[in-house]
Amino acid sequence: MVGQTDIAESVLSPDRLLPAEGLPLRVARELYESVEDLPIVSPHGHIPVEWFAQDKHFANPTDLFITPDHYVTRILHGQGVALSELGVGQSDFTDQQARNAFLMLGKHWSAFAGTPMRYWFEDSLARVFGIKKKFGPETAGAIYDELDEMLKTPEFSTRALANRFNMDFVSTTDDPVSDLKLHDKVNADPGFKPFVAPAFRPDKYLEPSRADWPQLVDALGRSADIDASTYEGFTEAMRRRRRYFKDHGAVLSDHSHADLNCERLSDGEVHLLFGEAYAGRIGAKDAARLRAHLFNDQARLAQEDGLVMTVHPAIARNYDATAFANYGADVGGDIPARAEYVEALRPLLNAYGNNPDFHFVAFTDDETVYSRELAPLAGFYPSFFIGAPWWFIDAPDSISRYFHDVVPYAGFTKLSGFIDDTRAICSIPSRHDMNRRVTASFVASLVCDRRISMEEGLEIVHNQIAVQPKHVFKLDAAEQ
Amino acid sequence: MVGQTDIAESVLSPDRLLPAEGLPLRVARELYESVEDLPIVSPHGHIPVEWFAQDKHFANPTDLFITPDHYVTRILHGQGVALSELGVGQSDFTDQQARNAFLMLGKHWSAFAGTPMRYWFEDSLARVFGIKKKFGPETAGAIYDELDEMLKTPEFSTRALANRFNMDFVSTTDDPVSDLKLHDKVNADPGFKPFVAPAFRPDKYLEPSRADWPQLVDALGRSADIDASTYEGFTEAMRRRRRYFKDHGAVLSDHSHADLNCERLSDGEVHLLFGEAYAGRIGAKDAARLRAHLFNDQARLAQEDGLVMTVHPAIARNYDATAFANYGADVGGDIPARAEYVEALRPLLNAYGNNPDFHFVAFTDDETVYSRELAPLAGFYPSFFIGAPWWFIDAPDSISRYFHDVVPYAGFTKLSGFIDDTRAICSIPSRHDMNRRVTASFVASLVCDRRISMEEGLEIVHNQIAVQPKHVFKLDAAEQ
Amino acid sequence: MVGQTDIAESVLSPDRLLPAEGLPLRVARELYESVEDLPIVSPHGHIPVEWFAQDKHFANPTDLFITPDHYVTRILHGQGVALSELGVGQSDFTDQQARNAFLMLGKHWSAFAGTPMRYWFEDSLARVFGIKKKFGPETAGAIYDELDEMLKTPEFSTRALANRFNMDFVSTTDDPVSDLKLHDKVNADPGFKPFVAPAFRPDKYLEPSRADWPQLVDALGRSADIDASTYEGFTEAMRRRRRYFKDHGAVLSDHSHADLNCERLSDGEVHLLFGEAYAGRIGAKDAARLRAHLFNDQARLAQEDGLVMTVHPAIARNYDATAFANYGADVGGDIPARAEYVEALRPLLNAYGNNPDFHFVAFTDDETVYSRELAPLAGFYPSFFIGAPWWFIDAPDSISRYFHDVVPYAGFTKLSGFIDDTRAICSIPSRHDMNRRVTASFVASLVCDRRISMEEGLEIVHNQIAVQPKHVFKLDAAEQ
Repeated sequence: MVGQTDIAESVLSPDRLLPAEGLPLRVARELYESVEDLPIVSPHGHIPVEWFAQDKHFANPTDLFITPDHYVTRILHGQGVALSELGVGQSDFTDQQARNAFLMLGKHWSAFAGTPMRYWFEDSLARVFGIKKKFGPETAGAIYDELDEMLKTPEFSTRALANRFNMDFVSTTDDPVSDLKLHDKVNADPGFKPFVAPAFRPDKYLEPSRADWPQLVDALGRSADIDASTYEGFTEAMRRRRRYFKDHGAVLSDHSHADLNCERLSDGEVHLLFGEAYAGRIGAKDAARLRAHLFNDQARLAQEDGLVMTVHPAIARNYDATAFANYGADVGGDIPARAEYVEALRPLLNAYGNNPDFHFVAFTDDETVYSRELAPLAGFYPSFFIGAPWWFIDAPDSISRYFHDVVPYAGFTKLSGFIDDTRAICSIPSRHDMNRRVTASFVASLVCDRRISMEEGLEIVHNQIAVQPKHVFKLDAAEQ
Repeated sequence: MVGQTDIAESVLSPDRLLPAEGLPLRVARELYESVEDLPIVSPHGHIPVEWFAQDKHFANPTDLFITPDHYVTRILHGQGVALSELGVGQSDFTDQQARNAFLMLGKHWSAFAGTPMRYWFEDSLARVFGIKKKFGPETAGAIYDELDEMLKTPEFSTRALANRFNMDFVSTTDDPVSDLKLHDKVNADPGFKPFVAPAFRPDKYLEPSRADWPQLVDALGRSADIDASTYEGFTEAMRRRRRYFKDHGAVLSDHSHADLNCERLSDGEVHLLFGEAYAGRIGAKDAARLRAHLFNDQARLAQEDGLVMTVHPAIARNYDATAFANYGADVGGDIPARAEYVEALRPLLNAYGNNPDFHFVAFTDDETVYSRELAPLAGFYPSFFIGAPWWFIDAPDSISRYFHDVVPYAGFTKLSGFIDDTRAICSIPSRHDMNRRVTASFVASLVCDRRISMEEGLEIVHNQIAVQPKHVFKLDAAEQ
Repeated sequence: MVGQTDIAESVLSPDRLLPAEGLPLRVARELYESVEDLPIVSPHGHIPVEWFAQDKHFANPTDLFITPDHYVTRILHGQGVALSELGVGQSDFTDQQARNAFLMLGKHWSAFAGTPMRYWFEDSLARVFGIKKKFGPETAGAIYDELDEMLKTPEFSTRALANRFNMDFVSTTDDPVSDLKLHDKVNADPGFKPFVAPAFRPDKYLEPSRADWPQLVDALGRSADIDASTYEGFTEAMRRRRRYFKDHGAVLSDHSHADLNCERLSDGEVHLLFGEAYAGRIGAKDAARLRAHLFNDQARLAQEDGLVMTVHPAIARNYDATAFANYGADVGGDIPARAEYVEALRPLLNAYGNNPDFHFVAFTDDETVYSRELAPLAGFYPSFFIGAPWWFIDAPDSISRYFHDVVPYAGFTKLSGFIDDTRAICSIPSRHDMNRRVTASFVASLVCDRRISMEEGLEIVHNQIAVQPKHVFKLDAAEQ
């Protein structure tokens, strides 16, 4: 009976996610401790700005931890729980139903063993709420009640949490026509620590295959005070809205299409296809070609306004037709697909890749591209950065693989830094802490390999956490 | 000169495949010991039922360890040994030839260093036959003679071995037209411990491109006592044969085609294409479309009868034309190809993926799909389970990668449990023991990461070995 | 403050790249020390034969370490440094410019942390030049001056370095029309230790889509003293030039096309397409089909002359149009693409794969093919060997992954042995030493897994370093 004696207090050990023992643990611990308390910089995320603006109080623990977090709801769905039982898409979800949903999480807690969702949740319970009791079927009810009481107090409003989390910078994800008034309001509050930046997410405006595309074009035009129904007008509207976002603190435009094709069309063809699309009679193939051109244009506009361009392609969106019909988008029915960057991005990189003032960050859920495609591209192009593992692969295991897959070929200076990419506010400090531990463990492995000195190791972890995200996402400029 | 002193007795060490030393070893050892002696549950395999029915005595050690095992013969072929020298396809293989084949294995033994085939063989020699002598060119002859003598004794017949191996459940793989009388006979023997289940493997009946497909359809119809020459008749024949298999203890249908396409045809088209195929005049492209529909039908029928559906696509079968011409199928000339699950399975998962009573298990030899495709699908769909690494990738290294690739995204409850998938009877306990060691080592890594407690670790390894395979393959129901 | 005390002298530690501590370190150290001083065998490389023939003195440290090494220049380019500043394509690069380039390397040294380029450079400084001072922005100038002085002395000419590096065999890469006189001259020098073999690299002669292909065909014909303007003449010219290379010590032909297609054409078609190509009017699609046939012919000719065939497909060459326009090929603007071996090689392997006298070595920069495609092919075909990780993936991390990905399925005897593949002469001993360390660490992991004994471990590392490359590349025959 060794294990139980040695590491009984394991789950909240200060050494979690660090090497098991010995020299690797001592080195990793020193590295981790040197960055443990640094402020959080989060250049891409999904917290609705309304939460900050209203200083939202979460209705109950389920409203905080389950309903808005498709990481959690999808695992429960995979256990046979209906999304509606978890509050997804339910406008009139009662307190009793919310409590039942939380009990359901407790009941299926063993399904989360080994997942990061469990890690974040336990970490949040302990560090944000001071609950040390082990979560599970027997304790879920008591923990719900304890949390519920706390959530009613001022210390646990959205702004109070964000202040407590020591966040310097947080980003929302926004529609290009948004007036960003709520961002202005939040950032005007002197008692609120983080700067809340909007992010320019024009995906739907670049998809001429959508039935509602002409209406979207009109809305874009209205927001930019220009007739966007021609290619020139559309482009000028995009230029204005990007500038508007930048003026309100945005640092990036974010893009997720089925692929990264960005072949430009001839002048004649782009006018022709734009006209057909606006008239609602473009075919699927031409719509894809027009989208490639419009996507390329976003890179072209970035040469003017300096917004960082982030991409995360190759997700089969709304894969499950039933879930989509019942609950709409973004409820867990997305599945990654095989991704391709090299051929697809050639036109864009040949045009803008050598501009060091242009920053292009490639995220992926297909790990096979890290060593084969992304690291070689980042190694060559000054503009190219490799996004940290995110969404499906933001676990300690894949973050570790990422470092081993890309650092040898592109070095630390071509990494994006960590991205939390989440709607689950309490998971933000847990995710960043997880990343700091895994980063420390990887850098410790280089030190223990005798590839770098301890002194360099300390410098590298500091740069990865405190400097690299600000450099890649041009944050210092944005906050001015 | 450290190593030789410290771990000289290494190959049969009780700690093999566990971490090298220290806390990780102590934790893994405790986890392993807790499941070491559990009975073997083997829901998918290839031991011919005839061996059990006849209580086959192996003619000699080559007949046991080499000729029927394409894992072993392919490596020897890769060393330049002709398959005929190993007894493959030789109906009149003499004892002298068999001895020579075994000497050949000894001669090329260094080619097996680092492979699981070596691990299983050495493990079997020591644990099944009590031979502690090191196998190699100098000892192969003596070991052959020793084994040969033992194989003639009652303790080493097929049934005696299976009883000794502490097997609760073992599956064969069978033709849908089989009458399964041998299964009934074996299972009626009160002195035989394991339940021997048939498995429904209809691949060739679903391939209308085969020249002999009309004859196969007729044979299927005869076995089901119905005219199968129309689509309705064929479907009813399938329904009856699946039910017949289930009534005789089958728990699964097993499918391996070039891809997983399962797009359904319209009623009109399926009748048209079925008719053309039965008349022997269907083209390759239409045959593939009809196969996709018929494969989809197997999932549809599973909604009625509850058979688990297992798939392992994307193998280039009979790749080497010479080997195929000389020896036929299944002699080692199969090579894995790139696999795709997400797009291919969309029709099937949209129709049946949310049915928790439907169990779909996806195996692969293409490791790239684990984190990108299989874990996200298993995370979302209650019906979807991720098959353990098998065939080319059933080694400690890839089993470990599998855990690291899928557990963070889908959790332990969406794994299939271990599958031995073998014709080599003595390797069955060795393979299961290997899996228990690697499972213990992975779970130990979570404990040492302080992600789970030792108590949970013990629960997880127990579930993985004793509970999960029975749940995924509905074994408790089957054995009643 | 643990790390700094414990492993302060880390970067040049005798234990670098070995496990951190304990039993794994002791085992790996013993294995490594047993092969540390073995001579270097390098069957594939890119040192220009002229350097050996002229016994070139490097003009300065930049001429040695930066300008000719696209591994280094690409990382600096990725930091925003123009290739011209590094001397690439500059015929009149002054000493001052060279010194500035070296300072640039110092300035960006942190971008190399964790990369093998840094490892090789620091290893070379210490072991070849005896410089123990840490390289970086502050020391780059002083180190430049120190190196510059040494490079002017006879001890640091190309031949003196090669002699000092204990190289037994080194290969250049050559145009099929080369007269190989320089190789003869170098190999006739009794004071020069390594045998310098040419390698047959016919890529451009097999690409009928090139505008200059008819001229290349004529040049090939002239070098072979035959009219090569017909398919028969071309084939005979190839036969003669391959034989000529072999007679001058070549052991291999080396091939890198966009893919590995090798489907043969009918006699009629090959004559037709060859004629059209020679007349300069072949289309892209037919040119690709003709190339596939001509590539297949190289394998056919290898059956006659016994040259080893090495391939490394699927690189997007000259990806960056600007770099290509300004500096030409091979300056770092190549990016790997997804590779496919199984379907593409079927015609070749079905024809020649079972000939044990034919040696086919498959290299890749796409790691996904190791366990899925290359290991299964090598496991079955006696002719098939899996090339060591090279180019983008020749780092400790990927060499380690390579062993874990292929050894379990194909064993050690189907590996190519290490390939340094470099223009950077000082990196040769560093690269081989790196490989010996990683090989020792992998074999140590098998010993610590109790999968092999220490005695076998020692035999395996010896074979991998001293025996396997000579066997795979038939070096003993070549040197006679």
